[in-house]
Amino acid sequence: MFELSRRLEFSAAHRLHNPAFSDARNRELYGVCNNPHGHGHNYVLDVTVRGPADADTGMVMDLNRLAVLLDELIFQEVDHRHLDHDVAWLSGRVSTAENVVAAMWERIAPRLDGLLYRMRLWESRHNFVDYLGPDAS
Amino acid sequence: MFELSRRLEFSAAHRLHNPAFSDARNRELYGVCNNPHGHGHNYVLDVTVRGPADADTGMVMDLNRLAVLLDELIFQEVDHRHLDHDVAWLSGRVSTAENVVAAMWERIAPRLDGLLYRMRLWESRHNFVDYLGPDAS
Amino acid sequence: MFELSRRLEFSAAHRLHNPAFSDARNRELYGVCNNPHGHGHNYVLDVTVRGPADADTGMVMDLNRLAVLLDELIFQEVDHRHLDHDVAWLSGRVSTAENVVAAMWERIAPRLDGLLYRMRLWESRHNFVDYLGPDAS
Amino acid sequence: MFELSRRLEFSAAHRLHNPAFSDARNRELYGVCNNPHGHGHNYVLDVTVRGPADADTGMVMDLNRLAVLLDELIFQEVDHRHLDHDVAWLSGRVSTAENVVAAMWERIAPRLDGLLYRMRLWESRHNFVDYLGPDAS
Amino acid sequence: MFELSRRLEFSAAHRLHNPAFSDARNRELYGVCNNPHGHGHNYVLDVTVRGPADADTGMVMDLNRLAVLLDELIFQEVDHRHLDHDVAWLSGRVSTAENVVAAMWERIAPRLDGLLYRMRLWESRHNFVDYLGPDAS
Amino acid sequence: MFELSRRLEFSAAHRLHNPAFSDARNRELYGVCNNPHGHGHNYVLDVTVRGPADADTGMVMDLNRLAVLLDELIFQEVDHRHLDHDVAWLSGRVSTAENVVAAMWERIAPRLDGLLYRMRLWESRHNFVDYLGPDAS
Repeated sequence: MFELSRRLEFSAAHRLHNPAFSDARNRELYGVCNNPHGHGHNYVLDVTVRGPADADTGMVMDLNRLAVLLDELIFQEVDHRHLDHDVAWLSGRVSTAENVVAAMWERIAPRLDGLLYRMRLWESRHNFVDYLGPDAS
Repeated sequence: MFELSRRLEFSAAHRLHNPAFSDARNRELYGVCNNPHGHGHNYVLDVTVRGPADADTGMVMDLNRLAVLLDELIFQEVDHRHLDHDVAWLSGRVSTAENVVAAMWERIAPRLDGLLYRMRLWESRHNFVDYLGPDAS
Repeated sequence: MFELSRRLEFSAAHRLHNPAFSDARNRELYGVCNNPHGHGHNYVLDVTVRGPADADTGMVMDLNRLAVLLDELIFQEVDHRHLDHDVAWLSGRVSTAENVVAAMWERIAPRLDGLLYRMRLWESRHNFVDYLGPDAS
Repeated sequence: MFELSRRLEFSAAHRLHNPAFSDARNRELYGVCNNPHGHGHNYVLDVTVRGPADADTGMVMDLNRLAVLLDELIFQEVDHRHLDHDVAWLSGRVSTAENVVAAMWERIAPRLDGLLYRMRLWESRHNFVDYLGPDAS
Repeated sequence: MFELSRRLEFSAAHRLHNPAFSDARNRELYGVCNNPHGHGHNYVLDVTVRGPADADTGMVMDLNRLAVLLDELIFQEVDHRHLDHDVAWLSGRVSTAENVVAAMWERIAPRLDGLLYRMRLWESRHNFVDYLGPDAS
Repeated sequence: MFELSRRLEFSAAHRLHNPAFSDARNRELYGVCNNPHGHGHNYVLDVTVRGPADADTGMVMDLNRLAVLLDELIFQEVDHRHLDHDVAWLSGRVSTAENVVAAMWERIAPRLDGLLYRMRLWESRHNFVDYLGPDAS
């Protein structure tokens, strides 16, 4: 069993804000991340597929195909965008790293034949989140 | 002569847009950086002072004092903010890396007794700008 | 289930030396790390909590609260210190990465409501240790 | 239980090509990695051993002994070499990251008393593979 | 005056070998870099243009145009190639970092209207070369 | 003209303290860097030589010879040491980055035939100092 990972970088703006909360509650909960005009990051996304290596090709899957999928499904959608205003499939979710990575999972997993194993999203070099999918215990 | 540098990191949103240009011209000129809702970066700023080392202290200047100044004059103003909407001293300038670093120079230089020598601003690991001040030839 | 990680950096000195061993045995065992006057590192500590994301906040836990806890319980105690001489809760342990990270776990875990999942301590970019707590099998 | 990791870097050339496939199939499968004269990387290898820390030494194993083993068994064999032409124990395998890391596992595992737990091989900062050995499920 | 830099990464193989020297001389001079089948690197190239920022656009030059030029003139030519066998404009030069960066300068400079100021080529994180062009003193 | 740089990393302890000053003055001046038992860093040293590339070899100088010199004159002396107690040629100087890099310059320059151009010493990723030698204006 191998775990093969591909890294993607994108630059985006976002703001942590839940409209169901009062302004005071939002500020208390999200701190500076709740600033009204938003802030931004150079995000880094590590996408990991897991499986045996094919005996003939020596690969878990075609890494170039993975790269193309990530470009089409993620990079073209979020790079140089505002995650809260510009990305339909993030709409209605507070754009915490947890929620963003889970939405990205939903988008990629159906295209990866059950191989998707883990996604790690870095907001900055100071914090990141790992997600193993809705079925991981 | 020594050049002593201190690094600062901050996360901010911005948008490249000159209201004096048409929308079409802005889009042509700034590309994805002109997206209406903005995008963002984990910026890195390297501030360099230049001078001899004091014979007794062994320092060009007190690095902790430099760090405190940068925190007060830069970090507290721009971290987790939108550079175009939240920062008075960036107002009226297109927030290119060139313009941002020059504005930061104006803000810091008067507090550094002629020692300020160079500022480097990274927008991402893919591009950065160096500025040596308005008097450099 | 999400794993949310926060990174902390600190600079410290230490020396690997077990007073129960002879000088020759210490030198043989710890090599250059046993040099009498010690050496030092820019340590990097990644602290990971694990749990579901709250449906309303979108967070496993408040990342700012985690950052404040790490500052108070770890950074203020070890940054710019000698781990063997200045840190009471490391006293009596050889300051290997394994022992240091385990002592840090003991210090943080009681404050994290069962969420603490993994701690990774880098001594340098060449070696690091992961610890999953005393109950991990 | 601790997981102790040591990092090794080496520079090597390689080409992805399976002589059992047609040229067209090789080109389709491996893309630019199939270029006839090969390409190269600054590889990074993270080798992880897993076990309890010895109560007296505070170490899972002697990190210097691990470093010496990696230098002898890996670095001296692959650094500044062509993986397909110069390394006997890689001969006959397509030099995908999966196959290379598995071959390195076979070479190191017998010398590590059952402690070897995981090997991660980075081809570049954009992709890496993790391997947990032939018995991992 | 601003210095604006753009970073490019590519993976390539090469071998240091001067056919005008004996094999013994090549081996003595270039060491492991002379291995017959070559080795490789993940090269990093920082290209710097220098000039005033345009008062209206706030830019030294259009960074996207620079990126497109570098992709066309450099990346498409050298990425996943063998520098000695696959790149016509490197032919007949020993592929030291000095010679490679000078050849890249010759290729890019005519397209940059006198703005090209410095090129830095990293072979690995352990060594790099800066070049300021044939006219720098 | 080329500037060729080689990077060296070492781990060391040090303490900023001038015995000619009072304890209070030392504490005020050096802050946490004055802690009595010292602290430490993973230092990074970039050594740059400057000159034309030899027409036959394509090199400013033999990079391997530079690496061997740096290992012998610097790394073997300071790695896993306490800069204030273990290094004769640093004795009597406060171990600021400025003083340390200047002492290293004195040690290396006589062996480099006038080619030594710049030395950059990083104490951490947050600060570094550049030195161009005693004759630079």
